[in-house]
Amino acid sequence: MYQEITPNGYGIAIETVGEKLYSKQSEFQKVEIFKSKGLGNVLTLDDLMMTTTEDEFFYHEMITHIPMNSHPNPKNVLVIGGGDGGTVREVLKHDTVQSVDLCEIDGLVIEASKEFLPTIAGKLDDPRVNIYVEDAIEFIKDKKDCYDVILIDSTDPMGPGVGLFTVDFYTNIKNSLKKGGIVVPQSESPFAQKKEFKNTYILLNKVFDTVLPYTGPVPTYPSGYWSWAFCTNDNDNSIKDMKRAKKIEEGAKLYNTELHKGVFCVPNFVRKLANNE
Amino acid sequence: MYQEITPNGYGIAIETVGEKLYSKQSEFQKVEIFKSKGLGNVLTLDDLMMTTTEDEFFYHEMITHIPMNSHPNPKNVLVIGGGDGGTVREVLKHDTVQSVDLCEIDGLVIEASKEFLPTIAGKLDDPRVNIYVEDAIEFIKDKKDCYDVILIDSTDPMGPGVGLFTVDFYTNIKNSLKKGGIVVPQSESPFAQKKEFKNTYILLNKVFDTVLPYTGPVPTYPSGYWSWAFCTNDNDNSIKDMKRAKKIEEGAKLYNTELHKGVFCVPNFVRKLANNE
Repeated sequence: MYQEITPNGYGIAIETVGEKLYSKQSEFQKVEIFKSKGLGNVLTLDDLMMTTTEDEFFYHEMITHIPMNSHPNPKNVLVIGGGDGGTVREVLKHDTVQSVDLCEIDGLVIEASKEFLPTIAGKLDDPRVNIYVEDAIEFIKDKKDCYDVILIDSTDPMGPGVGLFTVDFYTNIKNSLKKGGIVVPQSESPFAQKKEFKNTYILLNKVFDTVLPYTGPVPTYPSGYWSWAFCTNDNDNSIKDMKRAKKIEEGAKLYNTELHKGVFCVPNFVRKLANNE
Repeated sequence: MYQEITPNGYGIAIETVGEKLYSKQSEFQKVEIFKSKGLGNVLTLDDLMMTTTEDEFFYHEMITHIPMNSHPNPKNVLVIGGGDGGTVREVLKHDTVQSVDLCEIDGLVIEASKEFLPTIAGKLDDPRVNIYVEDAIEFIKDKKDCYDVILIDSTDPMGPGVGLFTVDFYTNIKNSLKKGGIVVPQSESPFAQKKEFKNTYILLNKVFDTVLPYTGPVPTYPSGYWSWAFCTNDNDNSIKDMKRAKKIEEGAKLYNTELHKGVFCVPNFVRKLANNE
C-alpha cells in the first residue's frame, strides 16, 4: 500500500501491485514508478504523488487547454517541469503550435516516464518538441519576447521546485512572453495547502495584472481538489478561437467549452484565499 | 490510521487521534465517530466515510443551495437520510422555509451527531424541523403534493440505502412534489464509482424530464470528486430569487451565484456517463 499523508494528517492510499517498476535516486530526488490495482502506473518523486495513468487527464487537460484556448494563436509554448510529458502531449493537440520547449530539471523523470508511462510521455519525441534538461531558473533568464503560453507544471514549493515560487523567477517569465502571452502555474490545493495557495497568489499578483484562480478535481492529489492560476498582463480568459476549442473538446476526456467558463467559478473560500482576504 | 479503500484499490487515509468517541451497532449499521488530526471529528457508517467537521461544507452546501436557489419560494422541504443534520442546517438558512421534514432510518446517527458533531447537527432542534426515524421508502408512499424541494442525502446504493435507488421509490418521490418541485439526490463519484453513477442516471431519467448532473469536490469521499443530480419535471436550474441567493452567498464557505452556474459545466466523461453513452 502506498500512502501520501499531508502535514494536515490525511491523504491518499493506493494498493500497489508487484515490485516497483522503476526506482532511482537522481541528483535532485528519488524517482519511482509502481503499478497500482486501479489507477494504472503511478509516478512518485520523493514519495510524493506526481501522476497516474488513469487520472492524469484531469491535471493535464486543465493546465493546458484553459490557457491555450484563451490565446488566439499559440505558436510557441514553454512547459516548465512536466517531465512526464502529459502537458506537452495536450499542447500538441492545438494545430497552431510550431514549437514546444520542455524545461525539466531532472532527466530521470523523462527517462522513467518514457519507459513506464508511454500513454503520457508518448509525444515527447514529436519533432516540434525541444527538451532542455536544465534548471528553469537559469533557462528563462535570457529569454525575451518568445513564448505565447508558458505552463508551469512544477512540484510543490519545496525540494527542487522551491526556486520557482519567487518574484525574480516570475519577472523573468513575464519578460519571456510575447504580447498577449499567458502563464499558468499549478497553484496547489486551496483546501489541503491553504498557506501555499495563498502565498502563491500573493506572489503572482506582484507580477501580473490579471491573476485568476481556476479549480478542478485531481483524484490523487492532496484533498482531490486542485488549482491553477491564469496569469496575463494583456489578455483575458475567454475562448478566442471557438473552432479550435471545439476540436479540442471532441478529443478530450475533460475539456469542453462550457467547462472552460465553469472552472473559473470558484468557491468563496478560494476567492478569499486568492485575494489574501 | 483510518483507511477507506474503494473496490478500485484506492482511497483516503486519515490520522486518528485517541480512542473512538462513539461506537455503536444499530439495527442497520455500525455507527462510529472518531477525532482526526486535521479534519476535526469524523462520522463513519460500517467503516465508510460519511462526513467530517472540516470538509462537510462542500457536500452540504452543494446538495442544498443549488436546488433551494433554483426554486422561487421553497417552503416545505424533505431531507432523506442526512441524520448528521448538515443538510437541514443549510436548508434553514433560506428564510422562505416553513418546515423541514427529516426522514432518517437510523436514530443512532442522529444521536451520535448531536453529541459529537454539534457544528453539523446543531439545528436539528429548530422548531421548523420534524424528525422521522423511519424508512423513507415507507414514509414517502402516502405523501402527495406536499414538498417544494426534496434532498436525498443517502448512503451508497448498498446497505440500508439500496432501496432508495429504485424507480418505485423515485415515482413516489415525484408524486410527493408540489408544482415546480425539485429533487436532488447525491449521485456518487463519476470517477471512482462510474457504474453506480451511470445506473443512477439511467434510473432518474425514467422518472424525471430534466436530470442534470452537477459536480464538485468532497475531499473525504472516494476520489474527492462527487456529484448530485438536479431533477425536476416543471422547473429549471436557474437562480429564481437573486436577493435570497446573494444572502446565502454572504454566509457561505462555498456557494456563490457564479458557482451556481459553474457546477453544471461538467467534464465530457461525466456528461457521457450521465447520458449513458
